[in-house]
Amino acid sequence: MSREMPPAHPFDDDKLKEECGIFGVIGLTDAANFVALGLHALQHRGQEAGGIVSHDPELGFNSVRRFGYVRDNFTRQSLMETLPGPLAIGHVRYSTAGAKGAAIRDVQPFFGEFSMGGAAIAHNGNITNANALRRELIERGSIFQSGSDSECIIHLMARSLQRNIPERMEDALRRVEGAFSVVAMTRSELIGVRDPLGVRPLVLGQLGEGWVLSSETCALDIIGATFVREIEPGEMVVISARHGVESHFPFRRQQPRFCIFEHVYFSRPDSIIGGRSVYETRHQIGVELAREAPVEADLVCPVPDSGTPAAIGYSHESGIPYAMGIIRNQYMGRTFIEPTEQIRNMGVRLKLNVNRALIKGKRVILVDDSVVRGTTSRKIKEMILDAGAREVHFRIASPPTAWPCFYGVDTPQREKLLAATMSEDEMREHLAVDSLRFISLDGLYRAVGEAGGRNAKCPQYCDACFSGEYPVAPSDMIEKGFELKAAE
Amino acid sequence: MSREMPPAHPFDDDKLKEECGIFGVIGLTDAANFVALGLHALQHRGQEAGGIVSHDPELGFNSVRRFGYVRDNFTRQSLMETLPGPLAIGHVRYSTAGAKGAAIRDVQPFFGEFSMGGAAIAHNGNITNANALRRELIERGSIFQSGSDSECIIHLMARSLQRNIPERMEDALRRVEGAFSVVAMTRSELIGVRDPLGVRPLVLGQLGEGWVLSSETCALDIIGATFVREIEPGEMVVISARHGVESHFPFRRQQPRFCIFEHVYFSRPDSIIGGRSVYETRHQIGVELAREAPVEADLVCPVPDSGTPAAIGYSHESGIPYAMGIIRNQYMGRTFIEPTEQIRNMGVRLKLNVNRALIKGKRVILVDDSVVRGTTSRKIKEMILDAGAREVHFRIASPPTAWPCFYGVDTPQREKLLAATMSEDEMREHLAVDSLRFISLDGLYRAVGEAGGRNAKCPQYCDACFSGEYPVAPSDMIEKGFELKAAE
Amino acid sequence: MSREMPPAHPFDDDKLKEECGIFGVIGLTDAANFVALGLHALQHRGQEAGGIVSHDPELGFNSVRRFGYVRDNFTRQSLMETLPGPLAIGHVRYSTAGAKGAAIRDVQPFFGEFSMGGAAIAHNGNITNANALRRELIERGSIFQSGSDSECIIHLMARSLQRNIPERMEDALRRVEGAFSVVAMTRSELIGVRDPLGVRPLVLGQLGEGWVLSSETCALDIIGATFVREIEPGEMVVISARHGVESHFPFRRQQPRFCIFEHVYFSRPDSIIGGRSVYETRHQIGVELAREAPVEADLVCPVPDSGTPAAIGYSHESGIPYAMGIIRNQYMGRTFIEPTEQIRNMGVRLKLNVNRALIKGKRVILVDDSVVRGTTSRKIKEMILDAGAREVHFRIASPPTAWPCFYGVDTPQREKLLAATMSEDEMREHLAVDSLRFISLDGLYRAVGEAGGRNAKCPQYCDACFSGEYPVAPSDMIEKGFELKAAE
Amino acid sequence: MSREMPPAHPFDDDKLKEECGIFGVIGLTDAANFVALGLHALQHRGQEAGGIVSHDPELGFNSVRRFGYVRDNFTRQSLMETLPGPLAIGHVRYSTAGAKGAAIRDVQPFFGEFSMGGAAIAHNGNITNANALRRELIERGSIFQSGSDSECIIHLMARSLQRNIPERMEDALRRVEGAFSVVAMTRSELIGVRDPLGVRPLVLGQLGEGWVLSSETCALDIIGATFVREIEPGEMVVISARHGVESHFPFRRQQPRFCIFEHVYFSRPDSIIGGRSVYETRHQIGVELAREAPVEADLVCPVPDSGTPAAIGYSHESGIPYAMGIIRNQYMGRTFIEPTEQIRNMGVRLKLNVNRALIKGKRVILVDDSVVRGTTSRKIKEMILDAGAREVHFRIASPPTAWPCFYGVDTPQREKLLAATMSEDEMREHLAVDSLRFISLDGLYRAVGEAGGRNAKCPQYCDACFSGEYPVAPSDMIEKGFELKAAE
Repeated sequence: MSREMPPAHPFDDDKLKEECGIFGVIGLTDAANFVALGLHALQHRGQEAGGIVSHDPELGFNSVRRFGYVRDNFTRQSLMETLPGPLAIGHVRYSTAGAKGAAIRDVQPFFGEFSMGGAAIAHNGNITNANALRRELIERGSIFQSGSDSECIIHLMARSLQRNIPERMEDALRRVEGAFSVVAMTRSELIGVRDPLGVRPLVLGQLGEGWVLSSETCALDIIGATFVREIEPGEMVVISARHGVESHFPFRRQQPRFCIFEHVYFSRPDSIIGGRSVYETRHQIGVELAREAPVEADLVCPVPDSGTPAAIGYSHESGIPYAMGIIRNQYMGRTFIEPTEQIRNMGVRLKLNVNRALIKGKRVILVDDSVVRGTTSRKIKEMILDAGAREVHFRIASPPTAWPCFYGVDTPQREKLLAATMSEDEMREHLAVDSLRFISLDGLYRAVGEAGGRNAKCPQYCDACFSGEYPVAPSDMIEKGFELKAAE
Repeated sequence: MSREMPPAHPFDDDKLKEECGIFGVIGLTDAANFVALGLHALQHRGQEAGGIVSHDPELGFNSVRRFGYVRDNFTRQSLMETLPGPLAIGHVRYSTAGAKGAAIRDVQPFFGEFSMGGAAIAHNGNITNANALRRELIERGSIFQSGSDSECIIHLMARSLQRNIPERMEDALRRVEGAFSVVAMTRSELIGVRDPLGVRPLVLGQLGEGWVLSSETCALDIIGATFVREIEPGEMVVISARHGVESHFPFRRQQPRFCIFEHVYFSRPDSIIGGRSVYETRHQIGVELAREAPVEADLVCPVPDSGTPAAIGYSHESGIPYAMGIIRNQYMGRTFIEPTEQIRNMGVRLKLNVNRALIKGKRVILVDDSVVRGTTSRKIKEMILDAGAREVHFRIASPPTAWPCFYGVDTPQREKLLAATMSEDEMREHLAVDSLRFISLDGLYRAVGEAGGRNAKCPQYCDACFSGEYPVAPSDMIEKGFELKAAE
Repeated sequence: MSREMPPAHPFDDDKLKEECGIFGVIGLTDAANFVALGLHALQHRGQEAGGIVSHDPELGFNSVRRFGYVRDNFTRQSLMETLPGPLAIGHVRYSTAGAKGAAIRDVQPFFGEFSMGGAAIAHNGNITNANALRRELIERGSIFQSGSDSECIIHLMARSLQRNIPERMEDALRRVEGAFSVVAMTRSELIGVRDPLGVRPLVLGQLGEGWVLSSETCALDIIGATFVREIEPGEMVVISARHGVESHFPFRRQQPRFCIFEHVYFSRPDSIIGGRSVYETRHQIGVELAREAPVEADLVCPVPDSGTPAAIGYSHESGIPYAMGIIRNQYMGRTFIEPTEQIRNMGVRLKLNVNRALIKGKRVILVDDSVVRGTTSRKIKEMILDAGAREVHFRIASPPTAWPCFYGVDTPQREKLLAATMSEDEMREHLAVDSLRFISLDGLYRAVGEAGGRNAKCPQYCDACFSGEYPVAPSDMIEKGFELKAAE
Repeated sequence: MSREMPPAHPFDDDKLKEECGIFGVIGLTDAANFVALGLHALQHRGQEAGGIVSHDPELGFNSVRRFGYVRDNFTRQSLMETLPGPLAIGHVRYSTAGAKGAAIRDVQPFFGEFSMGGAAIAHNGNITNANALRRELIERGSIFQSGSDSECIIHLMARSLQRNIPERMEDALRRVEGAFSVVAMTRSELIGVRDPLGVRPLVLGQLGEGWVLSSETCALDIIGATFVREIEPGEMVVISARHGVESHFPFRRQQPRFCIFEHVYFSRPDSIIGGRSVYETRHQIGVELAREAPVEADLVCPVPDSGTPAAIGYSHESGIPYAMGIIRNQYMGRTFIEPTEQIRNMGVRLKLNVNRALIKGKRVILVDDSVVRGTTSRKIKEMILDAGAREVHFRIASPPTAWPCFYGVDTPQREKLLAATMSEDEMREHLAVDSLRFISLDGLYRAVGEAGGRNAKCPQYCDACFSGEYPVAPSDMIEKGFELKAAE
């Protein structure tokens, strides 16, 4: 029910969207201030809304949840003073709102009062059996307050027979299918968990006497924390002043399947995954792409900003000069309230402009990170041709995106994905460009460090959006009629 | 947990405060618009916040809850359009906020999704065993989202084994002790209930094809509805398009004990209770008071606005001219955000001014509805004397308020009630007035229409705030150490 | 030009509206705080917007102007801290906005920087030759920033050849025709002026070492200041720390003509004019009305709140019981942003409700202060009859309002005034009431203390709205085609 | 006077700041919508506030001025509907607010009503004799409403004896010293003017039947207009439906001196100046810099985003790989309301993060556009070293900024400019970097296309910020004690 303050999206961003960033701190004075900064550094993982819960030994749990950017809400002295204490967790989210828009009560962290005290949890990922769990819980008398699947976890915890909160969380997460990284807190503990496949990231950092959990390392940097290690797939860490960091592995061990798209697009280029900066991985994707799909041209231009590292790599490898052929307007926000007709129709021109004098008469290679619906690619191509380019060659730093993600990424329905209905050739014709090439799946695996490419028997990553091979069956979606790829 | 947007109360209003007004409509197009108007007419029963839930066959349940006056929120086209459908209920509340202030999630109506569909409820009253119920429910795995006792009802309903919502509500309310009038809704039914004692009011009205439930009749008037009858103590009505108004009596029958303070102060003077306008009852209290406590004087002046009808009655009976010796500023609101020191210290002078030229040299009878802490009475007396009055005589239209209410009224702790610690003589001395007289309890009963006065064996009303005789044991409070009046 | 934030007026208030209240303080720490309180007490003289200018020896002039109530803007610590210093003036206004609505730059006080320093002025009244002055000033190169006629004064001051600001103000005001009370300030002086006829009020008060100027005495009371005297018609007072209160009479002396409608409606009942409280004058109007226009009835009821004192007077004189037959909703504000259709159509029912149980079967005398368009009277009559009254008799505490005011009061165009087009009998028929009577002009003069009634040769008051005799020719309006009453 | 809503600047941006962008449209339906888009594209020239004035034959002039970004204000349907008509101009500004902060009435366009009709003007630049003009105008009776120097122009126009507005503007601008580009409008004309030196840019564009004036060509692109030509130094164009584009040269001809810093930093890289894209010029500056100041290193990294084109050029020329060593947070806004202590202390870390894994152990060349106070450079160097860089070499794409600009750019006082008090060597030591080199003045001239370098006798550009040679004597500043560079 309900639709308060539905944010408007006049533009088709035409990107896959990570749904969440999570961050937690224990052992630092005014922990919520650190959480606010961490969430600011993770804002690219969710721009719609954010929330922080803190705990103070005297003042108990406090919570603030807001629509809008972290910097517009969680920077105010007067608001941050309502979040006292040395223990806090936070969450930024991209709305997965359906027809009825977003409500503040869908904003995490979620909080529950149990007989042994309160707990708050923040969840990054997606529960693929949430519908079934929700039905079961309502049948037993639970009252859901949000439309968010993540709320299942707190209700499962409320009904667990375990006598402490970390064990209740283990109980709950064992019932949950899908992908999840979780940061949670009790009155005295900060808890971090990754699902057995380790689909979504979670890292551990240290700052003075305090400990930090974060979706990415870039958020450790902003508060000056040291990167300690990644939380392992299937690991639960419970951190407290008394016992420090305790590690458990409550789930059955499995071959990890980290989301390969975190490398391609979601993570920030200055974050470190698997010991290497995401920037370097993307640069290497550009290098592989130049090897796989060379073309004669005058300039290599990125589609800003996400195509930039791969474009630099392509330029290095090919020797064709790198140039900024498309300029981004720095003052572009995402949301408009009751925009004028004209604004609604502007689309990508509000954000991007072609460097006309540079492009005119040139053969241009455009490097983008991915093609989703193809609508933006088409508009950009038109802008480039209007500016007088002689040839336009698209090079895409990921394989064709042909399957939706069910593990915490917002993707269009399958039929709206350009690559689900067209071959590479058809796409080139549809976009009306001189050439269009995607990196191969093996090329992508090589770029992320798998010298031997993809292990088709047992892939090293989750690449379902490219391959259609889902490591966890999306049971709710199958119930609704989603058809898996036919076995070959 | 939490403290979002705590409204400031720089003034001690020094009045008992009704905690809620409730209103519901079924069978009228855009029912929420009617609910908004009804709540506006019931605003005196709760000024802090308001909420409306509506149901539309196609769009399902929708809800808006807001801090502030109804007229500042629920009058906007754009907001009301988010509340479509022919069935809606609403609630206005006075915050009973503890140390941590009010949160929007404490604002009713509360909503719960059950396996047979959703239900929303709005509650006026107070549950005297809420703490015990909450403990039990949490122990079993319910997660409370608010600090409000009323949320117990929806959780009890969620756990009921009954197969339809009205029966689940009966189940739930049988577990609840205290005073309650409830307006609730399912997808197709509007439900009204009063507790067996009928402490809080609830009336039924009709408008065209539609039915209306309201705390008071004045809210029927504003939408042009006809007053049908009061819901009876212990009655549940279930109203639907298909079956019309169905009446049940799910509780054990008891001698009704309607709140006598509704006559004295809470209800609006243009509402009708027991077939007579509240204005007339208050006028009659003034008449009784003039008989019981006559005094020679030049003017009878009300303490505006609640003392006005009794002052007119006193003037009629005594023959002493009625005059407006104290003028109220029409532009006074209740809340200030971060007010200046000076504003904080102004108190009653921001609201009231003495008619100096009129009062000078006169013997003045001031008629007020009640004395709670006595702080306002003291300030008003000083203003009157500053203006040059020769004598000041207080006449109070209720007996001394010596006991807190536990049935839905916000009263100070017992030790802060002036009458709990002082005799009438001590109060007169404390206030330093020439005379001070309260109406007797019997006089009050006569004024409300009980010619024989109070039936001490089996009082016709709940008058616990005057008598200390609580018709329902306040079990949570007793657990916390509250001492009942010693048996005499 | 321009239309920012036009406040909506869904209701026809159907009252004449005073356009301004003014207030100034010198010699008190944080003078602006006192001005804010004074303006709050004068809010009935202008509800649309308010402004305060203060001066601090170190921080110079500061100014804040806001739409909305004083209590919603000028109570905040953070805002009031931007208005430091021991000298401040303020203004509340009712918008006289034309087709294009109100702009913040029309909100007074106006400020001008001259070669000898800055000055701010706040004006209550209306300049009847403003159009001609504005044309002349623009022709000479002045740039007007507002649509307000009052801005002429500051431009005339800017062009004066005098070497100090008070003398420049004298220069300016000698060019101005019409009615004005002015409160102004320089860096070291507080200045008050009334036009030679003294149409609009202005009083002097004292508080400790400080001096106060105010439209009415009720605003002295709120800050605890003592009423010293009225500023005389044609008087200018210049108040400074060094010289105290200096009085001048810069204009040619004339027979004063104070606005008689200040007694009838504009001023607050607790203000003192001519040594008597406005309340008592209105009470006396009721007494005269009962003598002039008696009728047999069961109840005398005021139309709240402005008819109340006259209704009490009518009841006293006639012996017919006084009762509150109409109840006002306390939670009614004036402005709605994009209201629903229903709200727009509610009109007076949002504000008033009939005390049905009291009125039923009764013969009711309704006492109102005035009839302007007659729309409200008609609706109230219908409400009373709907409630079952047997007879409805209107008694009006002023003569028929047949002429517009050009001296600072917002009146409809002449043809919209009911009394401009109908006789008393026709009005009675139009309103469809059992009887309708207005007080006579002589009766009104007697009630305000002129035992001999109106001196037709040389009236003691400005009563142009009743008599059509304008003490100052409204030259701008005549230029636009307004026709004066034909000489008799 | 006054300080309403002072925007907070918790960060020292440590950049010179262009003060304004201007844009005007005639002959297009709903011209204000195009102006809004144009201002959005010019937002980099002024982020503090923006305003639009439009004119409609029936509805006259309308105006909206707002603090904040264009995209947050001028995108709303409801607001844009208040700006109807086929003729509109707009302005974005960076506040030059003094101690007391910014007020909405300092926001342009300014409007004046003259006897022959109204006019609005928007000004980019700075009037160097504004103080003297203001004194003179006040002495004669003008009243200034803003603290902005630009208001002088409209007052001079009001006092001109010419009989039409373009001639009045010529009159006014002949009295004005300094640098200015002006876009103005009457009821039927769009007017554009550049000062005789042509210090600030202004270009003419065409869209269908309409004409456009804009500070830069990038704002023509966003609305799809064709670039026609630059307005020439000293030229005034008057554009009307009847006469099309009429050109005048009202000023004495002089050698043009366009601001060379527009090439270095102010203009957007996708704008075209003198037939070449600003991006290419900056790229060429990088090339020159690589020739003038080579160094052995592993990576060339830009300080984002303004150093990017020069860094690419440096990389191309030097052959050292280009890489993004510093990553910008996309979600960084500029203003914070009452920020927490921690936020205030974060400085550049809220905006930038080092790509640690990439930088570690490397010799890094950092290319920045300029060094102003040096505070940011210092912080960036520390971040780079913290991340483990082996060497840090700064290369600056402009000569040392040693003199303040008085022609419309916000510069710190001279003593705060690092280059005003230190030699290049001292700066290197102060910043503690391995090397620091600025491009030479001649190198810069070569890069902008002057193959022969700077003509010292008669420089082709205004380069006062580097050379101290001011083409127009800053008379107000000299009066305040500013000392010009001693003649050599």
